[in-house]
Amino acid sequence: MAKRSSLKQDACPVARAMELIGDCWTMLIIRNAMLGQRRFSEFQKDLGLAKNILSDRLRVLVADGIFTTEPAADGSAYQDYVLTDKGRAVFPIMVALRQWGEAFAFSPGEATNILVDRKTGKRVPRMALHAADGRPLGVGDTRIKAIVAG
Amino acid sequence: MAKRSSLKQDACPVARAMELIGDCWTMLIIRNAMLGQRRFSEFQKDLGLAKNILSDRLRVLVADGIFTTEPAADGSAYQDYVLTDKGRAVFPIMVALRQWGEAFAFSPGEATNILVDRKTGKRVPRMALHAADGRPLGVGDTRIKAIVAG
Repeated sequence: MAKRSSLKQDACPVARAMELIGDCWTMLIIRNAMLGQRRFSEFQKDLGLAKNILSDRLRVLVADGIFTTEPAADGSAYQDYVLTDKGRAVFPIMVALRQWGEAFAFSPGEATNILVDRKTGKRVPRMALHAADGRPLGVGDTRIKAIVAG
Repeated sequence: MAKRSSLKQDACPVARAMELIGDCWTMLIIRNAMLGQRRFSEFQKDLGLAKNILSDRLRVLVADGIFTTEPAADGSAYQDYVLTDKGRAVFPIMVALRQWGEAFAFSPGEATNILVDRKTGKRVPRMALHAADGRPLGVGDTRIKAIVAG
């Protein structure tokens, strides 16, 4: 694998994905957008991070095509930050992160939150990888296949 | 949400998960372990990162219970770094990151690699969230439900 400075050119999709959305604040901004936030001030208030850091992260997210800007829905002079298709496609990553966090990052009895099905109000099942024929696939059931350029 | 310094105590599982494994190098170390690497020198050579940074990341990963150390499998004086159950459970996150990277972080014709089913040699299907009754669930089909302490 290549050095950190060139992960955007790395052949591994994991490396490129982490380069684009592996930053902690970046993922939490996307999370908040998925929960309905659209405005700089909303992100800033909820995440409690410095305005210059939020501004920098949003600028990169727009440049990378994960967010787009729109005139404010309320007709004000502000702009809204809206997830693109590429941004909304982060959803399975968000769910996988959340479910791992639910399972391994809390002690019994701690305050937390869970992801529920909007239709039934019930907790969503654990997401897992399945083969084309439905077999569940774990770490040892897969391998990496190189695809050469061209 | 709380400040960056206290994400480990945040009520949101996404925030806690990112705090533990959101670092780019951390995720790439876990990736390499899932591909079979166990030795400091293997991680160091493949990732091309400074030894002190790798050493620091591995120390934290062991402290957080994601890796454990074992006497070297080859009987040498070195130690192996092995994923725990908590570490192996990162697999769905890794797959979700990879599949997003495959879809959005490469131009046509670039060198890359894909995840294939070891049994069939075929590319694994896209992982997705499904409801208990099998309905596919997207961003708008779920909501967050708070769980109070106690």
